[in-house]
Amino acid sequence: MFLNRLENVYKIMEQEGLSQTIVSDKNALFYLYGKWFNVGERMIALLLRIDETPILVLNDLFSFEDKDTKIVYFNDKESGPDKLLPYIIHHKALGIDKFFPSRFLISLMNLHAASAFKTCMAIDYARFVKDMDEQKLMIESSHINDLCMEDFKCALRIGMSEKEMQEECYKIYKKHGIDRVSFTPIVAFKATAADPHHEPDDKTILEAGDMVLFDVGGVYKDYCSDMTRVFFTAEPTAFQREIYNLVRRANEEAIKHIKPGVALKDIDKIARDIIDSAGYGEYFNHRLGHFIGIEDHDFGDVSLSSDIIAKPGMIFSIEPGIYIKDKIGVRIEDLVMVTKTGVKVLNEYPKDIQVLDLK
Amino acid sequence: MFLNRLENVYKIMEQEGLSQTIVSDKNALFYLYGKWFNVGERMIALLLRIDETPILVLNDLFSFEDKDTKIVYFNDKESGPDKLLPYIIHHKALGIDKFFPSRFLISLMNLHAASAFKTCMAIDYARFVKDMDEQKLMIESSHINDLCMEDFKCALRIGMSEKEMQEECYKIYKKHGIDRVSFTPIVAFKATAADPHHEPDDKTILEAGDMVLFDVGGVYKDYCSDMTRVFFTAEPTAFQREIYNLVRRANEEAIKHIKPGVALKDIDKIARDIIDSAGYGEYFNHRLGHFIGIEDHDFGDVSLSSDIIAKPGMIFSIEPGIYIKDKIGVRIEDLVMVTKTGVKVLNEYPKDIQVLDLK
Repeated sequence: MFLNRLENVYKIMEQEGLSQTIVSDKNALFYLYGKWFNVGERMIALLLRIDETPILVLNDLFSFEDKDTKIVYFNDKESGPDKLLPYIIHHKALGIDKFFPSRFLISLMNLHAASAFKTCMAIDYARFVKDMDEQKLMIESSHINDLCMEDFKCALRIGMSEKEMQEECYKIYKKHGIDRVSFTPIVAFKATAADPHHEPDDKTILEAGDMVLFDVGGVYKDYCSDMTRVFFTAEPTAFQREIYNLVRRANEEAIKHIKPGVALKDIDKIARDIIDSAGYGEYFNHRLGHFIGIEDHDFGDVSLSSDIIAKPGMIFSIEPGIYIKDKIGVRIEDLVMVTKTGVKVLNEYPKDIQVLDLK
Repeated sequence: MFLNRLENVYKIMEQEGLSQTIVSDKNALFYLYGKWFNVGERMIALLLRIDETPILVLNDLFSFEDKDTKIVYFNDKESGPDKLLPYIIHHKALGIDKFFPSRFLISLMNLHAASAFKTCMAIDYARFVKDMDEQKLMIESSHINDLCMEDFKCALRIGMSEKEMQEECYKIYKKHGIDRVSFTPIVAFKATAADPHHEPDDKTILEAGDMVLFDVGGVYKDYCSDMTRVFFTAEPTAFQREIYNLVRRANEEAIKHIKPGVALKDIDKIARDIIDSAGYGEYFNHRLGHFIGIEDHDFGDVSLSSDIIAKPGMIFSIEPGIYIKDKIGVRIEDLVMVTKTGVKVLNEYPKDIQVLDLK
């Protein structure tokens, strides 16, 4: 168990007035143990008590040892909640992480396990700030994503379908040692890019003059990358250039203002104001960014309704976009890390207009 | 919405004494709508009320129409549970499906949304019995899995690693039009097969004399297949033959006794007794089978602790095995469907001992 991470979680629990909490989300458990528990439909519950050794209640099919944890096993004929019960302080509130399955929670409620049940976001808050080990992995993960993006660009051929290019993406990741993607790679050749979650298809074929959008990320040693770039296959029209440069300016200006103490909602506003004042505000219809790490969407975002204040070690995406249906879709996305004095951009892949000469 | 499926769910809710229930699991929603809702961290809740049109509370990013459903949208600034509240009958118990995220459930509890909260398995029980459309898809899915198994066998080469063979499996599925697997294909060349969940690796190389185990399944039109076969690369030893034939007999005898009205725990016992009485009982350390359909593990199993009685339309696996560490691992698995008069085996791939002459 990473005891420094656990200490952070305890601190946040105390701030939230909780002395005990259940952690069951496998990403949260990975954060604490550096190990994936894949228990399927079976219960897994780590009980964190500020006054006690952590207690992990686990099905005996998944044997596990950790010197900092007391392990309590149940078998398939026993009930997980029953086994957990003796370790919960009944006269106090019990925190519950956000994804504990309802059937186990309802069992604990029926057992009157605690005086109250409260959603506990302590681990999610702890994960906002990446420690040094995590920072290193995130930097390397984005570095590899940069290298892959260059290969994606070089693999483009007139006449190929989005789906074919998507399959190339998987091969290229593999070539760079990446077996698992952060999310299904998005490849969009035409105005299909106006759907931010476009699913590449067989029938959209790359033609000379198309713009090409890649929104892609790989998982390096369990840490996710995520980047979006747009390429041109012919000299851009004045309109394409206007939209592209506008999105790029929104991306770069937002990034420029990131430093410790800044409210993330203000960073969203900087990007949004730039696109708004050029008259395209209605076409930027999503938040500016999201946190990322063990999951491609860690909890927390960069949006007008975000209450998060930038702290050193936070890593999130900055991804303004303009989406005009049947016409154009442009998004430019980097991962950034808040440093002690400002910001480090994890993606070094260029954002200049690139016009490709494709065969 | 499939109204016949909904009717079944209502019937089971009434048997359980529930007049209202929340469905949020995406597999359950697919079962009712034939559509995948991928809403990520956002709330989705279908409120089924016996006296009312179903109400689907959904984030407005995921617009959806269905003539049999009232849709209620919330946006990212609003609370899903708040939007759901007016439609719940507060003085009655509320059923909750098994995976509704705890944070939404806790919100509903804090809003005193209902007189009690109960785990509701109505959709899981409804899904026990496949309707005609589902049966057809399951039969076709297993038929394709049979064809793939033959191709897997033919792709084996002395000197290849388990990992290489696993990659061949993906290619072969693709060739047969299967883009998505039910689960990561298991390929085991040696005593690695003694781990029922073995993860194929780079260092286990196929040598003449090895036994080869494939536990594989593909997803055809959203319905899963799942089958295990073992091949020999040299004439089996007496011991290998004994273990193989024993597992095969357990598989075939269990299947032979399946018909409507039979308790699934008795089917488990038939297979287990055969292996037990040959002296290998301790090496068959898992349940005999599991239900399957939209998920590779649908709710419900064939085990000594199962209370399920066979009904026409039920589909589950029959997969006895013997696992002796560092020595041997054999499992033989078919999917079977209970019919009006007996049982139909969905896998027609042969179970005779096959000795391959590999290069």
